[in-house]
Amino acid sequence: MRKMRRKGLASMASQTVVTTPDTVDLGPAAGLSCRECGERFALGPIFACEICFGPLEVAYDFPSGDPEGLRKRIENGPENIWRYAPLLPVPADVASKPNLNPGWTKLVQADNLARELGVEPGKLHVKDDSGNPTHSFKDRVVAQAIEAARAFGFTTLSCSSTGNLAGAVGAAAARAGFRSCVFIPHDLEQGKVVMAAVYGGELVGIEGNYDDVNRFCSELIGDPAGEGWGFVNVNLRPYYGEGSKTLAYEICEQLGWRIPDQIVIPIASGSQLTKIDKGIQELIKLGLVEDRPYKIFGAQAEGCSPVSVAFKAGHDVVRPQKPDTIAKSLAIGNPADGPYVLDICRRTGGAVEDVTDEQIVDAIKLLARTEGIFTETAGGTTLGVAKKLIEAGAIDPSLTTVVINTGDGLKTLDAVAPTAGMSAVIRPNLDSFREAGLA
Amino acid sequence: MRKMRRKGLASMASQTVVTTPDTVDLGPAAGLSCRECGERFALGPIFACEICFGPLEVAYDFPSGDPEGLRKRIENGPENIWRYAPLLPVPADVASKPNLNPGWTKLVQADNLARELGVEPGKLHVKDDSGNPTHSFKDRVVAQAIEAARAFGFTTLSCSSTGNLAGAVGAAAARAGFRSCVFIPHDLEQGKVVMAAVYGGELVGIEGNYDDVNRFCSELIGDPAGEGWGFVNVNLRPYYGEGSKTLAYEICEQLGWRIPDQIVIPIASGSQLTKIDKGIQELIKLGLVEDRPYKIFGAQAEGCSPVSVAFKAGHDVVRPQKPDTIAKSLAIGNPADGPYVLDICRRTGGAVEDVTDEQIVDAIKLLARTEGIFTETAGGTTLGVAKKLIEAGAIDPSLTTVVINTGDGLKTLDAVAPTAGMSAVIRPNLDSFREAGLA
Ligand SMILES: [Zn+2]
Ligand SMILES: [Zn+2]
Repeated sequence: MRKMRRKGLASMASQTVVTTPDTVDLGPAAGLSCRECGERFALGPIFACEICFGPLEVAYDFPSGDPEGLRKRIENGPENIWRYAPLLPVPADVASKPNLNPGWTKLVQADNLARELGVEPGKLHVKDDSGNPTHSFKDRVVAQAIEAARAFGFTTLSCSSTGNLAGAVGAAAARAGFRSCVFIPHDLEQGKVVMAAVYGGELVGIEGNYDDVNRFCSELIGDPAGEGWGFVNVNLRPYYGEGSKTLAYEICEQLGWRIPDQIVIPIASGSQLTKIDKGIQELIKLGLVEDRPYKIFGAQAEGCSPVSVAFKAGHDVVRPQKPDTIAKSLAIGNPADGPYVLDICRRTGGAVEDVTDEQIVDAIKLLARTEGIFTETAGGTTLGVAKKLIEAGAIDPSLTTVVINTGDGLKTLDAVAPTAGMSAVIRPNLDSFREAGLA
Repeated sequence: MRKMRRKGLASMASQTVVTTPDTVDLGPAAGLSCRECGERFALGPIFACEICFGPLEVAYDFPSGDPEGLRKRIENGPENIWRYAPLLPVPADVASKPNLNPGWTKLVQADNLARELGVEPGKLHVKDDSGNPTHSFKDRVVAQAIEAARAFGFTTLSCSSTGNLAGAVGAAAARAGFRSCVFIPHDLEQGKVVMAAVYGGELVGIEGNYDDVNRFCSELIGDPAGEGWGFVNVNLRPYYGEGSKTLAYEICEQLGWRIPDQIVIPIASGSQLTKIDKGIQELIKLGLVEDRPYKIFGAQAEGCSPVSVAFKAGHDVVRPQKPDTIAKSLAIGNPADGPYVLDICRRTGGAVEDVTDEQIVDAIKLLARTEGIFTETAGGTTLGVAKKLIEAGAIDPSLTTVVINTGDGLKTLDAVAPTAGMSAVIRPNLDSFREAGLA
């Protein structure tokens, strides 16, 4: 299996052997290629290899030569992900189409945090994706899916979701002029329902859990009722996933076109981590950054740690778990890209680690207290793992480290509510103030 | 009174006649000037005129000549408010100090919304300040207060707040290395308490309402217990307020260094509206934009509409109201800058209007449904008023209009919760899906 994956990667540079309809213009995207067997397919709303059922990913014909010209073109591009349009499965004029224009979020030099963690000043950065339009990295991936949906003539945008993705799809569809119909478990918290419903698309509760929602969506894709529907995380998944590459592009550009020594990334399905690695590899091949060693670290919650467990046990396969953690956006018990994550973390000399729910909450508060960034539980997981790995010596505190913050604390208020309250309640006078010892 | 204000404005260009200590470097800020009588004072933590008790505002010695050079310098500056450091009361090296770096938020061309409102394509824009670090325009003003606090040697940052400001101060203080101690009414909703408390500063509940909190803060400023404390919206208010000018700077720059024909701005204290006008006037004086007519419109909720009532009645003074509206961040019954707002809206040929709570909710959902932007109740108020004024013919649909969105819908979920829910709940099968009429 490992060998076949290598072949898949190698074939990325080869010429397209299949024909994509002329009506489909997705820029440098030349076709789809199977990550397992390397088989090539035309661009279309497919996601699994006909030969081996492996996952498909986008293969490109990239501009070659002239890295300096490409770098200039990117730097003069828009202040959002479309500055990287030449490296994404989108048409060249993508920036002129209505979409939410996510990305180009802040890379925050976190010196206060570095001090607390014993990292050298100037070496620790937080890539803060809470600055995206709906305040999570999901805006990056949905934006790619939207362009694929346009290319394939879909008129309805859909997904299964436990919350964040529903809002990202609802918002992007509204702006881009698609109908949306999103499926969620019927017992989702009201706050998340509101965040998804406010954009005016159809929001359908499914009597069952997230697995039931997913199963229903797969059924719908095969049915005439689902015709003309683009499911961002199913039949548009190969395009959708490419959005995570932009995190790698931005981090490297923001560091002055330089690969960081160490990156800590949360693992849900594992797609984000694998695409960040893919993005770095592309920058190297295109000559946009110097080829140098880097280590990728994956972060999970102890209550959903199938990849971490496999990593520590030295296994190549991932044994599914039944999730039980406050980091609900990472709670995928059977992560599709688990084996690829193991591969990448081992290849680069990184690691996969997990932290407890208590450590997640502590890390959320640590980041807020030191840098004024309020992250959601997924970000708490990532920072918690970074802290643990620094303390264990696995992350070198003298080298450049980037920790990814994928989303916003406003979306997971419940996680910190029990331990973030008022310091005191006083009467409105100075005596009461002095008694409380606050002066 | 009107005459005295004119004198105050005119004196902005005059030389400083008072001496600011050498230790205080706030860039182009040359002193404070009374908006009523024009009297000048040295830069310091004062906010009311010793002569007439009028409000103080920052007066500048701006760079003169070479507007082209200044424009280039700004365009090559950082992608946040510090690109305008030469026009703000901050030291020249402000961008190298730790702060949240707010601003340079998106100006969204809202063509879907324009279509619904009958505005010419390309003419309607939303300035989306929900993209700031703590997701409201408050980050702009707090960032200025932080630099003043540094200059004056304060070590604790404080404010009275009903929610949004508490979070903005807590976050900014954490990152900038200040202690913070923020005062709120003791019965604030838990969500807002968490958003403010998570940054680790002191959060003190006051037994009483917001007026009691304010009164207590005024007492504390005069007491030894409050020594070394910078209250962003009291003794640092003249600096704090200047942050709103950056909204004007950004809007004009993002429109290609051009003043929009019409701007719609929410009114709480009225400070934001007056400072946006001040910012435009500065750009004209500095030769950064062409001097051309523009109209400023103020937006209030019907349940707290003292300025709107005064505008319609043709009064110069504002009669206080007891607020009762879902737009809580605008619920200031006795707005300090009310008379200035009336002056500006009349001088520019604009207007002040108000909308009902129901219209506010409708406008929130309209913006979400058309542009994928989820705004808070203040933004709903502003868009609701824009819609009303377009329908009434007061806003010209053939001219460029900018509507300010000051904050994020995630902070006022309760306002839309009753009317933003699931379209349907179904069993996880296609029959149930078809029965629901969703295909
Ligand atoms: Zn295959
Ligand atoms: Zn005065």
